[in-house]
Amino acid sequence: MQGNSVVVTAYDWVPSFAQGHVRDLRVRWALNEAETPYETRLIDHQQKTEAEHLARQPFAQVPVIDLDGGSMFESGAIVWTIAEASDNLLPKDAAGRRKALTWCFAALNTLEPVVARLAEVEFFIDDAEVKEKLRPRAIKAVETRLAQLQAALGEAEYLTGEFSAPDILMATVLRDLGHCDVLSKFPALSAYLERCLARPAFAKALDEQVKPFAENAHRYEQAA
Amino acid sequence: MQGNSVVVTAYDWVPSFAQGHVRDLRVRWALNEAETPYETRLIDHQQKTEAEHLARQPFAQVPVIDLDGGSMFESGAIVWTIAEASDNLLPKDAAGRRKALTWCFAALNTLEPVVARLAEVEFFIDDAEVKEKLRPRAIKAVETRLAQLQAALGEAEYLTGEFSAPDILMATVLRDLGHCDVLSKFPALSAYLERCLARPAFAKALDEQVKPFAENAHRYEQAA
Repeated sequence: MQGNSVVVTAYDWVPSFAQGHVRDLRVRWALNEAETPYETRLIDHQQKTEAEHLARQPFAQVPVIDLDGGSMFESGAIVWTIAEASDNLLPKDAAGRRKALTWCFAALNTLEPVVARLAEVEFFIDDAEVKEKLRPRAIKAVETRLAQLQAALGEAEYLTGEFSAPDILMATVLRDLGHCDVLSKFPALSAYLERCLARPAFAKALDEQVKPFAENAHRYEQAA
Repeated sequence: MQGNSVVVTAYDWVPSFAQGHVRDLRVRWALNEAETPYETRLIDHQQKTEAEHLARQPFAQVPVIDLDGGSMFESGAIVWTIAEASDNLLPKDAAGRRKALTWCFAALNTLEPVVARLAEVEFFIDDAEVKEKLRPRAIKAVETRLAQLQAALGEAEYLTGEFSAPDILMATVLRDLGHCDVLSKFPALSAYLERCLARPAFAKALDEQVKPFAENAHRYEQAA
């Protein structure tokens, strides 16, 4: 992976609730951990639906990454690809590498769906009565998975022992629970998340994502 | 990957609505495509919650695979690992391999959540009024993703051109829409799914999953 050819496509602005939570954060974090310099290509919410972007990201989302003369999408796939090309984001042995791959998919296919489901209930279901009926089930689903994750983590600092690619994915998923207090019932997971987010590469990624939002806010405030 | 050391952990029985839809199907399908012989270790729904299983699958689910002296879980991670060890489940070039990885994550992180959400509304929300209020939103989310997926597939037979690992994941996700008629609005996707499911390795995998259910049904019928 040649640093000078890496370009991350991200949004020029998103509403405040999404700032710091757009999925290019994962990619920026992984690139920063790998010490791979990258450029940014910013698009707006009109451009994401246009043919040029859809040819690179058919679901009208970000991130997309350009690297090694091609492009790819899906934050999980991109983080794994960056990790494979790095010398510090994956265990060196085959068994450890498989464990890392397992936890990458667990973060996005076992944890994220229940976390996203709870957020949907809280933020995208307008009917108050429906929301009240759905919330207990959604919270219970999250708590079940968090209890299992906490047990699996055990005394380990990170999912594969040392910090590795799946911690980037898992931490960004757990961080999206920040709108409620469910994580506080799982102190070892809260400590794990805190440990991940204390990494300088995360703070740098977060800054890099939100900086353009501040710079472009005036254009959207005028439009609103 | 040594064929004689590959063991897939699956359930000895599940209720009829889940038969043919448990996620070990993906792993069996991939192994059959790779022509890797495997053995099966069957567990029941008590065993899945016991310490021995949780040490291998912390979320109390199947599948688990034993291979090369270790074990791993998450069907997406397992299918990718089988594909990497095969000579017929991934494109040979680096760009094609990245495209395959992208589509594996897209199947499980972009398509499956909306498909599972619709199934949840249909089968796990008991309150009829709530169900009616949630259904339109859930169907629309699926239709949006299916339209985008159909456009991305275009004239291609499979996601990366030739049949490859992500088709196993995507086909099993789309197949879970069989409870409703939403897929019929997308003829190219219906044809794609049919093409995938016509593969002998799929039919063999399906047989292999459901055979133990028939053999063990009498034990559960007695218990009920």
